[in-house]
Amino acid sequence: MKYSIVLSTQPAQFQAATFKGDLEGNLHRIASLGYEGVELAIRDPKLVNLDLLKKLTRSCNLAVPAIGTGQAWGEEGLSFTDPDPAVRLRAIERIKCHIDGAKRFGAVIIIGLIRGIVKPGVQPVQAMNWLVEALHECSQAAGLHNIRLALEPINRYETTLINSVQQGLELIERVGMENFGLLLDTFHMNIEEADIEASIRDSGAHIFHFHVADSNRWYPGAGHLNFRSILKTLETTGYPGWVSGEFLPKPDAATAAYAGIAHLRTISTPV
Amino acid sequence: MKYSIVLSTQPAQFQAATFKGDLEGNLHRIASLGYEGVELAIRDPKLVNLDLLKKLTRSCNLAVPAIGTGQAWGEEGLSFTDPDPAVRLRAIERIKCHIDGAKRFGAVIIIGLIRGIVKPGVQPVQAMNWLVEALHECSQAAGLHNIRLALEPINRYETTLINSVQQGLELIERVGMENFGLLLDTFHMNIEEADIEASIRDSGAHIFHFHVADSNRWYPGAGHLNFRSILKTLETTGYPGWVSGEFLPKPDAATAAYAGIAHLRTISTPV
Repeated sequence: MKYSIVLSTQPAQFQAATFKGDLEGNLHRIASLGYEGVELAIRDPKLVNLDLLKKLTRSCNLAVPAIGTGQAWGEEGLSFTDPDPAVRLRAIERIKCHIDGAKRFGAVIIIGLIRGIVKPGVQPVQAMNWLVEALHECSQAAGLHNIRLALEPINRYETTLINSVQQGLELIERVGMENFGLLLDTFHMNIEEADIEASIRDSGAHIFHFHVADSNRWYPGAGHLNFRSILKTLETTGYPGWVSGEFLPKPDAATAAYAGIAHLRTISTPV
Repeated sequence: MKYSIVLSTQPAQFQAATFKGDLEGNLHRIASLGYEGVELAIRDPKLVNLDLLKKLTRSCNLAVPAIGTGQAWGEEGLSFTDPDPAVRLRAIERIKCHIDGAKRFGAVIIIGLIRGIVKPGVQPVQAMNWLVEALHECSQAAGLHNIRLALEPINRYETTLINSVQQGLELIERVGMENFGLLLDTFHMNIEEADIEASIRDSGAHIFHFHVADSNRWYPGAGHLNFRSILKTLETTGYPGWVSGEFLPKPDAATAAYAGIAHLRTISTPV
């Protein structure tokens, strides 16, 4: 397995972005801990100097396997399922804006909280239709550049749309685009999946990206998830991608990043 | 182990109250499924006919091991930590109102969401002080009648006050009343506890009540929690109380209630 870790490129409210701020120093720290990649959480690509980012990550020998987009929801309220069509349009445009960066880095674009929730006054069926339309349009645009989109099933407390892997697989059917798949996250799966390993097997080739955090959202090894079994199951699906740490910076970011990769290396099967 | 299940005595928004409405029919159904007790979720004891309730539960041979109080928060906004002293006072009075019912049934009074959250503009230290004061006052009043109070650590998404068992144990220290203890809930522990069994052992004699729901809040057996290990550990603490099902009514209340007790009986060590 190749390990990466989430890094926010600007101050974010989202607590689970393990490293925040001080970009260059953080990239060096991440590389020095043995991570081979860094997952970038970017609110708006227009506000990020992609050339500099590319230069910095390359100088640290860090790949960028995925770009997170959820800050656009958390900080601007953009979503695919807002009753206001202008907001939906802006959300779609924002995701399209990520395609250029995704191309440069060879990264998958993550569809997390930007999918939105079922807002008051909106029928769930309507929200799902908007979601499918938006994902179809974004996948089509990304497909022209061979870029893939990965939707993350997120636990019930954070969204009312697509909590479980099963719902994610049904969504994939509806969107019907080969470059649209899933991002599985062990923290969310601990709450939503009756059998985490079975859900990984069910997802199979639809797994485009993979997040690890322990049951308490701390670094792997700090909770009660069985990462040996989880990663072994992930391997059996033929998943060729990255295992990316998205966990709380507790007790502090550096300790969490260090302890997380140490635990995963100890328990993972040698490739 | 003796098994009970949560029953709401009036329509409630709280989804995890497994049976709702149709009191008499529900009590009979619960008894017929093999439960020996029913945990009553009561918003306001003044609105409940305790004599009738006593008669009905007795006629079904059902004990009432615990009274849940969280609806007063969910439906009226009462809490121990509201910045408005009048609201705090009403919350304290509401808990005191439960003492009479608790006496009749020999039930523990549950302190769940009525403890409140850290509201905007309130310092966490201040909220904790209000919480300690309220719990001390309620425990003192209940103690005069040999009634016990059990605070439930609840996961981070539902409250900002007392998420983990460790925080609960520290609160017990501060309240300093022998009749104030903990209610452990397996659904919340799955999210908050690094090691569920270790947290049960750490709680020891402070466990006054115990809730079971599986990792996905469905009935035990529908998720990935190891109830064999959990209940065995609970037994080793010498816990003499009830194991009470508080889970979602899925796929429907009757199926969940039936499947839950069936699973627990299969895996639990004979007493």
